[in-house]
Amino acid sequence: MSDIDYRALFIGDQAENGPIFKELLEKLVDEHIGWRQNYMPGDRPGIAVHDKSMPEYEAAQERMREVMSELSQRLRAGSVPWNSAGRYWGHMNAETLMPAILAYTFAMLWNPNNVALESSMATSKMEAEVGADFAKLFGFDEGWGHISADGSIANLEGLWYARSLKSIPLALAETLPETVAGKSEWELLNMSVEEILDLLDTLTPEQYDEVKGASSRSGRNINRLGKWLVPETKHYSWLKAADIIGVGLDQLVAIPVSDNYRMDIEALTKIVEEMAQSRTPILGLVTVVGTTEEGAVDEVDKIIALRDRMRASGLYFYIHCDAAYGGYARSLFFDTDGRFVDYPELSELHQSHGIFSRDLLVSEEVYAGFKAISQVESVTVDPHKMGYVPYAAGGIAIRLKKMRNVISYFAPYVFDKGVVAPDMLGAFTLEGSRAGATAASVWAAHRCLPLDVSGYGRLIASGMQTAHRFRDFLADLKFTVAGRVVRAFPLHDPDFNMVDWVFKADDMTTLEEVNDLNQKMYDLSSYLAGHEYNNIFITSHTTFSRQDYGDSPAKFIHSLGFDDSEWGRVKSVTLLRASILDPYLNSNELFSYYTTAIEAAFNERLSEVLSG
Amino acid sequence: MSDIDYRALFIGDQAENGPIFKELLEKLVDEHIGWRQNYMPGDRPGIAVHDKSMPEYEAAQERMREVMSELSQRLRAGSVPWNSAGRYWGHMNAETLMPAILAYTFAMLWNPNNVALESSMATSKMEAEVGADFAKLFGFDEGWGHISADGSIANLEGLWYARSLKSIPLALAETLPETVAGKSEWELLNMSVEEILDLLDTLTPEQYDEVKGASSRSGRNINRLGKWLVPETKHYSWLKAADIIGVGLDQLVAIPVSDNYRMDIEALTKIVEEMAQSRTPILGLVTVVGTTEEGAVDEVDKIIALRDRMRASGLYFYIHCDAAYGGYARSLFFDTDGRFVDYPELSELHQSHGIFSRDLLVSEEVYAGFKAISQVESVTVDPHKMGYVPYAAGGIAIRLKKMRNVISYFAPYVFDKGVVAPDMLGAFTLEGSRAGATAASVWAAHRCLPLDVSGYGRLIASGMQTAHRFRDFLADLKFTVAGRVVRAFPLHDPDFNMVDWVFKADDMTTLEEVNDLNQKMYDLSSYLAGHEYNNIFITSHTTFSRQDYGDSPAKFIHSLGFDDSEWGRVKSVTLLRASILDPYLNSNELFSYYTTAIEAAFNERLSEVLSG
Repeated sequence: MSDIDYRALFIGDQAENGPIFKELLEKLVDEHIGWRQNYMPGDRPGIAVHDKSMPEYEAAQERMREVMSELSQRLRAGSVPWNSAGRYWGHMNAETLMPAILAYTFAMLWNPNNVALESSMATSKMEAEVGADFAKLFGFDEGWGHISADGSIANLEGLWYARSLKSIPLALAETLPETVAGKSEWELLNMSVEEILDLLDTLTPEQYDEVKGASSRSGRNINRLGKWLVPETKHYSWLKAADIIGVGLDQLVAIPVSDNYRMDIEALTKIVEEMAQSRTPILGLVTVVGTTEEGAVDEVDKIIALRDRMRASGLYFYIHCDAAYGGYARSLFFDTDGRFVDYPELSELHQSHGIFSRDLLVSEEVYAGFKAISQVESVTVDPHKMGYVPYAAGGIAIRLKKMRNVISYFAPYVFDKGVVAPDMLGAFTLEGSRAGATAASVWAAHRCLPLDVSGYGRLIASGMQTAHRFRDFLADLKFTVAGRVVRAFPLHDPDFNMVDWVFKADDMTTLEEVNDLNQKMYDLSSYLAGHEYNNIFITSHTTFSRQDYGDSPAKFIHSLGFDDSEWGRVKSVTLLRASILDPYLNSNELFSYYTTAIEAAFNERLSEVLSG
Repeated sequence: MSDIDYRALFIGDQAENGPIFKELLEKLVDEHIGWRQNYMPGDRPGIAVHDKSMPEYEAAQERMREVMSELSQRLRAGSVPWNSAGRYWGHMNAETLMPAILAYTFAMLWNPNNVALESSMATSKMEAEVGADFAKLFGFDEGWGHISADGSIANLEGLWYARSLKSIPLALAETLPETVAGKSEWELLNMSVEEILDLLDTLTPEQYDEVKGASSRSGRNINRLGKWLVPETKHYSWLKAADIIGVGLDQLVAIPVSDNYRMDIEALTKIVEEMAQSRTPILGLVTVVGTTEEGAVDEVDKIIALRDRMRASGLYFYIHCDAAYGGYARSLFFDTDGRFVDYPELSELHQSHGIFSRDLLVSEEVYAGFKAISQVESVTVDPHKMGYVPYAAGGIAIRLKKMRNVISYFAPYVFDKGVVAPDMLGAFTLEGSRAGATAASVWAAHRCLPLDVSGYGRLIASGMQTAHRFRDFLADLKFTVAGRVVRAFPLHDPDFNMVDWVFKADDMTTLEEVNDLNQKMYDLSSYLAGHEYNNIFITSHTTFSRQDYGDSPAKFIHSLGFDDSEWGRVKSVTLLRASILDPYLNSNELFSYYTTAIEAAFNERLSEVLSG
């Protein structure tokens, strides 16, 4: 299989692939129509020819035409051109894969519901294949996965797994005390997921049910399970998840992030060690691969190593990896034989697939972080982010398939027969009904673009390379506006494909002035400006406050020429932020064309702001 | 506005409207393509002409063609013809509205994400309009609603509302005791939602935040909030919701259903009165409008009356209505001026819109049940069920918009400025990212088919009328097979559009024989039979067990000619089940054509089973 030119799989920034999109869409729709016409072709039709000429029939279709006109007008007037090859540098949005759009549209004509096999014979199998893709992507040899409504729901499901599994030992102590005889509460609360599942394997189906009934689903013991560790940046989906699942925000412990915006391993170690010493149980921890604001990749390997080390002190915690954003990038490390390559081989592998025309842009630290995901319990991964699949398609994978029996709503003897397991997905997931079309969409994307260096790897690497180019471009910028010199300051050397930066005039002496300038630059460059279609440069922004970031931004503030007291005084910095999913800009000509245009746009807007 | 011939809005059982579907689809796709081509038309394109002739580019498109072929083959081989005008009598599935499919496809090309206004300027507004439609549909004058991933998630959100709101008084007692001075714990736990919201209105923004921080989101007090009352049939989505939200299955109290499969009001009254007497707090109750197995509509009015009466004893509970299935049927009671009509006017209103060619098929009890939904706190309503919109589109409406501030993840002073409220839907809902395309889809359906007698009312009435016809057709059936007389026994006179029935040979003396016959009839008539496309009659089935239904089925078992001891002995009955959403069969000619065909199919399959 040759490498994929992923550009062939998008409609195109200027609809360069419009013709093939239309051709395939028409073909698929015709195949559907033919199917309808040929199911019991001798049957009396539901709509007779004369029905169609009745006034109420014609009025309904006229109305539909009007509604479609309004729809078209509203969408065209109110949408963001994130298909653009080089004008959109904002949120984690890009145009989506043509096969995913086609597959969604086609499958939707049948309206399958993947809650149960019998309402989605074709697409349930596709979801199972996608789930297997996820498990493989994260190195879960005995794992399982499925599509979820979005990343928030997948994170909630991860926490549901943690809460349910970690409550099993207490449930065993209550219902079948002989199975955990001699264990203290501390020991019960620190059993590993494997130990718990092994114990459950020894039970009869009736005992299994009884234990589940006494687990956290009963509502008991939830407050005893321990602390839930999250990065101090506290993405609101983790707060919501802890709220909804009943663990509660009181149990949250914020772990500082370091000046590279990854979880601070030293600080984490200290906190975990103190908890071990004070015998404070830890329910679990969220690690992040691809933070939403900086694209930072946690050193998951060091977190795993810490957990392994702590087992000697009798402490064990569940780990959920929020790789909603970064998960697909693990494709970068698989060769076309499906092997996760070693770091020393990576550079050659990438060269042989035409990835990274510059130096290898994956540091060993980032590689190690991605690699270690195979040792966490569950992972969120969103096809609608780096999977380039339309909304809404979240996903989750678990390391051990049998974990799902702990949260399921069928008795184990039912699924042991092999009847229910594949037939009733809704019994093993947080959601019930779900669109089979989503599964078809993700499936088609994965089949067109393999989850290895030849497929998603190349596409994602392209964005990473553009991010590095963009960072360097920003670092070199210098404007003279209204007699003042203005420069751009990139936040950091990105782990992934996200670039944050601020503009600052050399004569600015306070952080407030800088924040004000960047807020105004955002206001002119946001889609909220009210002219999204005609805006020639669009970006997003973010704010790092001391409350959420501690002093991690201090180093960056320093690089702006302020001393530390300025950060201590203002406690907040506003940055412009570009998540770079663009599939086109990884070419010298295009990059230079668009950066020239953007530089002009920056200049114009800086003038508007600073002369205003 | 004239009445709508809703048949004009479906692709058609035999694709009778295929041409207009294709025409509009092409028009919309062309409008999108034109939009891409004309955003900065002078820009350098991302894909150059010569790129397209490169081998990797061609290989990618060839691969896409192959994947699309496989997709088409798998969908056509593995889908159920629920578009059929009269061969599909199974789950709550039917073909979906053409404008909804078109709108989804069109909006998906822009990939809006309704989590935030800035990533979905057009479709976020559509979701707000749909939410207002829901609020209006349920009579919530000060209400609010939004689209959710599915009914399970909406039910979970309803329970999240209940748990959060009912925990506020305890939080007030803890943080601002003077606001609830003199109230006992029992009084705190029995404050009404209005009283709670009124109290919150008196707080400063900082106090509001502090109180929220001490509410159930903290993880505290959840076990003190009281019992959660659900129908004894225990749909697994309610169990899952109670598990996930941390209230726990221990708090569930199963309320018996009566022999019409509605919640047994007498039994409920007794249970609630006993709880009032024993001072056992009740967190809330789930009432169901349109049960999934029988289409039964709870007497919500009597539940509301009971709650009103109990307030004298100081007891108050939250009510969530699961109208995932039945909610849209409330359209039947709105005239085209948007007025909810009184029962005595209903017959004339329906006649004037050509609804129900037979007698009025909505009993006063069912009318009163629907009407009283306006007094519950929250309602689940699924556009992907009786809204005839593709999966996945659930929905929820709340009676008072300000309830949402209690679950939100923004400080009240932020949303009081009116900035965040419309801009960040994800802060007020269980999910985060969600497809703007879903909002466009539901919006287009509602605009083509108003939520009153002229629109959804007529469409839904058509299914209800067919259900009554089908019930009567079944009641008259009599076959002679292998020398044995076999009859069909409908379960009951349906509240809504669902018909359950069993076949029984006159000489059968045990319920096991009857169950065996119906299981085998299902096996031949299910899509799991492995020949979904060629199956000439497709249905679904259900089982009523004594564990889930108590003795409600005893009356039906009696009607089969068994005495009560037989039910006591076997404790389970297997029924065939048809949810009738069909938009075509409300015509004498078609109904008689298809029932003749079905009668022949029944006869053939009974022969196969009984002679086998």
